[in-house]
Amino acid sequence: MSSTSRDPRRVLVTGGSGFIGRQCLPLLVERGHEVHALSSRSRPASIPGVLWHQLDLLTDRDTDALCERVRPDAVLHLAWVTTPGVYTHTPLNLDWVAASLRLARSAVAHGASRLVSAGTCFEYDHTAPETCQEGVTPLRPDTLYGASKVALADLLAAFAREVGVGNAWGRVFFLYGPHEHPDRLVASVIRSLLAGESAACSVGTQIRDFLHVRDVAAGFVALLDSDVAGAVNIASGDPLTVRELVLEIGAQLRHPELIALGARPLSPRDPPRVVADITRLRDEVGFRPHFDRHTGIADTIAWWADHHHLTPGSES
Amino acid sequence: MSSTSRDPRRVLVTGGSGFIGRQCLPLLVERGHEVHALSSRSRPASIPGVLWHQLDLLTDRDTDALCERVRPDAVLHLAWVTTPGVYTHTPLNLDWVAASLRLARSAVAHGASRLVSAGTCFEYDHTAPETCQEGVTPLRPDTLYGASKVALADLLAAFAREVGVGNAWGRVFFLYGPHEHPDRLVASVIRSLLAGESAACSVGTQIRDFLHVRDVAAGFVALLDSDVAGAVNIASGDPLTVRELVLEIGAQLRHPELIALGARPLSPRDPPRVVADITRLRDEVGFRPHFDRHTGIADTIAWWADHHHLTPGSES
Repeated sequence: MSSTSRDPRRVLVTGGSGFIGRQCLPLLVERGHEVHALSSRSRPASIPGVLWHQLDLLTDRDTDALCERVRPDAVLHLAWVTTPGVYTHTPLNLDWVAASLRLARSAVAHGASRLVSAGTCFEYDHTAPETCQEGVTPLRPDTLYGASKVALADLLAAFAREVGVGNAWGRVFFLYGPHEHPDRLVASVIRSLLAGESAACSVGTQIRDFLHVRDVAAGFVALLDSDVAGAVNIASGDPLTVRELVLEIGAQLRHPELIALGARPLSPRDPPRVVADITRLRDEVGFRPHFDRHTGIADTIAWWADHHHLTPGSES
Repeated sequence: MSSTSRDPRRVLVTGGSGFIGRQCLPLLVERGHEVHALSSRSRPASIPGVLWHQLDLLTDRDTDALCERVRPDAVLHLAWVTTPGVYTHTPLNLDWVAASLRLARSAVAHGASRLVSAGTCFEYDHTAPETCQEGVTPLRPDTLYGASKVALADLLAAFAREVGVGNAWGRVFFLYGPHEHPDRLVASVIRSLLAGESAACSVGTQIRDFLHVRDVAAGFVALLDSDVAGAVNIASGDPLTVRELVLEIGAQLRHPELIALGARPLSPRDPPRVVADITRLRDEVGFRPHFDRHTGIADTIAWWADHHHLTPGSES
């Protein structure tokens, strides 16, 4: 079964112009897949070998027509509402559940035999500071976003079991890299320092698992090309404090004095420790990240040095 | 808050021509509500005081337009796929999740402040023969139907919390009564005996909680008119074996010899004991059933005696 499923296939990628999606596309092309990317944008970036389809999964009624036309063998479903400060609580999360179910039903009706979708570390219970392990750590989302992802994961798993297709669920932890929303942590600290301005940070004691977005994308592509079923953490397995992370940026940009630790309050909703067990990703999917914390930050700084004219809202 | 929420309101009932829904309508009218009933049928039964709207929630795109027109204060959502032998495993369950989310979003957007929906005892883990108690007994559905109901319950609870509306989830156990699908247990045994034919039953050792459908409906209406939040079992709290139930039918129809116990195999998927704790329904909602097992069966026999010309498929 393993060799069959790794043959080049027709893959439909949702959220193709998103933070993770855009990084998946060239990797899928490299692996010989026929890549169909969905975006709600009218003019997504041109990527060699990628066939673009403009479709708003939330409002468009053409999901079924698209699946009939493309007839994907596999779906990599990354689209969701991700606007910082909005995505955790917006009722749009429900619309994304509904849209995702519609997509899964259509794709399978038109021949898809494997579904891989993006979940989140915010599905896990973070009240106990344990390492998050698939199938072991209890799920206890405390946002509508997390609850929606948990519900969708359960629905897709039950559906896939019922109709006999492959199904996997990549739980994304923390990430950074090119094209990150400028307001998010790593992007905003780099942008401040590149502008010679102080970066207001929290005290930074939170322990997190950060992974470069290109590795997140490569992890998803490896998961898609595997036969692994169920939830798989997509993470580095290299926990660090936010303090260590931002000081790494300060050191690489030679402006450690601009990192203003403690200038922002720690959110009471911010759990002290969110760390991933990556045994499944490493041993079952067989994936190992390309970047470590040093090379990942270096790559991201280099990208922002070329793109620091970008302002909040001009990228998403 | 209790008195406010019990004032007469505009109530939208989905599945209005269904087994439970049709029994809810006159009860809601009696309580002074303005009752809007949805049905996918073109000519549902006329019930005094009920305003009918024809709409297929699954395929129709007019859910939002309907909610805008009706502007319900409360929604009693009973519609779902219920065809015996089909509903447990059909992928239509996913479409019902999506349609239910769409309805909840639209109703709340147009002013609804309370949502009450139908869940099922098949959400519970039945591998351990414990009494099913809300918030205590683990949920472990083993069908796509059960998984879909669990996921929808979680989504609606998280959504209601987020947007600040009331939300309750009535978990229906086993039921019988007028207008039951002719193929289901109580209906088919009564129909056989009325026709003077033998009724092939299993050995009947399964312990179940059966409630007359009019009481199920009255339980839902009481739940809607209360401020109770979360999951509430809608059941009799009077467990009996299937053997006792069918022998009661045999005794009342004076043909106990036509009850062929053991003529059908017990399904291996049929749990030995599915029993409801009704503390919440009784003490928090304040509901007590009108029928007991004797009067409930007598009422149902009387109804079938007038309707035994109905054949499978002519009622649903």
